[in-house]
Amino acid sequence: MTSERRTIFRSAEIISVGTELLVGQTVDTNARFLSAQLSEIGLSTYRHVVVGDNVDRLEQALHRALSDNDLVITTGGLGPTDDDITAIVTARIAGIALVANRAIKSRLESRGLYTPPGYPLIPEGSLFFHNDAGTAPGSLTYLTFEGLPKAILMLPGPPEEMEPMFLEYVRPVLEEHSGAKFVHRYIRLTGIGESRSEEMIRDLIECQDEVTIAPYANPGEVIYRVSQRLESGDEDKTGAVVEAILERVGEYVFEVGPRSLPEVVFDMLIARKETCAFAESCTAGSVAASLASLSGASEALLGGFVVYNDEMKHALLGVPTDLLETEGAVSDACVRSMAEHCRGRTGADYAVAVSGFAGPTGGTDENPVGTVYIALARRSGISVRRFFFRGGRERVMKQSVAAALNLLRKGMIDG
Amino acid sequence: MTSERRTIFRSAEIISVGTELLVGQTVDTNARFLSAQLSEIGLSTYRHVVVGDNVDRLEQALHRALSDNDLVITTGGLGPTDDDITAIVTARIAGIALVANRAIKSRLESRGLYTPPGYPLIPEGSLFFHNDAGTAPGSLTYLTFEGLPKAILMLPGPPEEMEPMFLEYVRPVLEEHSGAKFVHRYIRLTGIGESRSEEMIRDLIECQDEVTIAPYANPGEVIYRVSQRLESGDEDKTGAVVEAILERVGEYVFEVGPRSLPEVVFDMLIARKETCAFAESCTAGSVAASLASLSGASEALLGGFVVYNDEMKHALLGVPTDLLETEGAVSDACVRSMAEHCRGRTGADYAVAVSGFAGPTGGTDENPVGTVYIALARRSGISVRRFFFRGGRERVMKQSVAAALNLLRKGMIDG
Repeated sequence: MTSERRTIFRSAEIISVGTELLVGQTVDTNARFLSAQLSEIGLSTYRHVVVGDNVDRLEQALHRALSDNDLVITTGGLGPTDDDITAIVTARIAGIALVANRAIKSRLESRGLYTPPGYPLIPEGSLFFHNDAGTAPGSLTYLTFEGLPKAILMLPGPPEEMEPMFLEYVRPVLEEHSGAKFVHRYIRLTGIGESRSEEMIRDLIECQDEVTIAPYANPGEVIYRVSQRLESGDEDKTGAVVEAILERVGEYVFEVGPRSLPEVVFDMLIARKETCAFAESCTAGSVAASLASLSGASEALLGGFVVYNDEMKHALLGVPTDLLETEGAVSDACVRSMAEHCRGRTGADYAVAVSGFAGPTGGTDENPVGTVYIALARRSGISVRRFFFRGGRERVMKQSVAAALNLLRKGMIDG
Repeated sequence: MTSERRTIFRSAEIISVGTELLVGQTVDTNARFLSAQLSEIGLSTYRHVVVGDNVDRLEQALHRALSDNDLVITTGGLGPTDDDITAIVTARIAGIALVANRAIKSRLESRGLYTPPGYPLIPEGSLFFHNDAGTAPGSLTYLTFEGLPKAILMLPGPPEEMEPMFLEYVRPVLEEHSGAKFVHRYIRLTGIGESRSEEMIRDLIECQDEVTIAPYANPGEVIYRVSQRLESGDEDKTGAVVEAILERVGEYVFEVGPRSLPEVVFDMLIARKETCAFAESCTAGSVAASLASLSGASEALLGGFVVYNDEMKHALLGVPTDLLETEGAVSDACVRSMAEHCRGRTGADYAVAVSGFAGPTGGTDENPVGTVYIALARRSGISVRRFFFRGGRERVMKQSVAAALNLLRKGMIDG
């Protein structure tokens, strides 16, 4: 066992098992999660494959995957209701018997979970991993295939079971199989698109060598992962690359680390013992909800107003009717008034107001679809910014949420 | 060409091309979309494969896919920036030259898009499909492989380009290659889990024959697709199966058709020329935002309040302080007062109030984490329901949003 655990894995293939994936009932998020994790520990993913709950096709897929890779990871096809097809096929290919595992069974029973007699079965002598969020265990089986040392890692299919199992139990084992240690740093930007930010650091991307730079993008957020493979004695050079990136795009960076924009804003509010509130028109509660998605949000989030038409802006917030008539609801003056009244009525330290044309209809010559005004009211006064966002309704709303949180963040920094 | 277009495709494989998928930067939603579409037109998906931007691996994947299937669909690896790897490999396998397509180029130019000289290249004699949301075109190439008639369908990678192209141009062509016509009906449920609803219609699922029943689940929603393959002269029997399902689970059904729960509620409000408003504690604006995601939402959505702590429930809505002290914010009395005041202040026909413990902390013996009270205030009075939801914070919030909308829907039906 000890020698097997010293095997270096160079490449991996991920096989997702489940007919529900092949008929379009479910999207396979496991492959993405696992590939990102493997990439962090220095294992490259060679291929993803999805097969149905079919013994022959799974066996064919496992054969091909073992021919091309050191490590094959399966998700799904485990557990009594799925007939344990993945475990059965893996055991057959490895030439290893399936045996009932008492340690897992008794742990499941201590959680009050009933399991059928003889369950769970895992290949004899395999490492096994508890499933703290479900029933089907994970396992890592070492085998010899075409004369070479290989391994099959079986994981349960539901992401809410697979992800915590991987992070808690599996990743440390796989790290032992990686040829090197890796260091990763994450730089998170908002208020700038992926292509424009890449232009600003193009020379750094083009001259990457030991230290690599990988971009990831979500609506309203661009992330650069700065990575280096560290052999013993190597110097960690990621810090210098992070500094160089910050020099170019620092004004757009809200975090060097793991936190999302709502998390950064929330942590800042908590540290300052301050509170926030929102007056939302086109985002209709999405900004408040983005903070409320964090546990303990009530320590910093007071609440606010959803004012989706002119009457509500007047009735709930007190925006003057003549202002709405002369300036319109999508205007500097309107969000200024919304933020001011929101701060006054809630007593929050910071009030952010959002009003814009999310589309597809609406908009004027001066303020076309995609125009969003955002105001921040704080002790020292009120500031307003106008944004022009591209994309459909959903994309405009997501970008508006990020811009509102970012304006709040910058307001706290400026004081 | 005519004889090729009469070829019946029996099974398909989907190959997604892109290194960004293998390092976990992107989740492959195209495979799910295409599998669901193929399933609707009666083509079964045999396998999904993801390969990087690598000529040899893509060629190997295409070979294997053509051996096992009549139709191979690729997404990604098209266009000048991706070096057109998919087009190059497909042309080589098919033994067909790539030729510049003037019709596509002039259409791109009429949209004001610059394209490099000689772009786009598609395999000679292929059907081609315009990309109205981007640049890279789609194409369908007929070829003979191992002596059998096969086809490769190349589609662009970005979902916002691929999906409309497929629906508008590609699906009608593939329908000609399907051996039969299919009829599908969708039954949408909320307020019940997938497994419990399946138990209630188990005998129907077990005796399915010509008419098939397939379940799909999202948080707060279960969908049953009732399908039948119709040969000429066959009688459409799906209506009777839909009726049988409705007899068992009708009380949970909000739609027999394509619409989501927010769409159903919005359409009902519009038809009745009525309006709604929301007073949200634990959902913090998510219910209002779910309606605001629909274009034209302002015709029915007035707005509302986010009242995330006790002070806001009193200050913004007027919930009495002594009620909050004696009953607590997560109580029948509190949501009743929230809904009543929300309706009074907004003048909406319907006001819905939500307050609960989303977790992971909070909760009491009587009202543990996952307890959510929802009240509906309307002309005829106020009704309150208590729910117990399972799962993490995000799941509890999503289920709360669905329950709030469903209570509003039922309130409109009851009058």
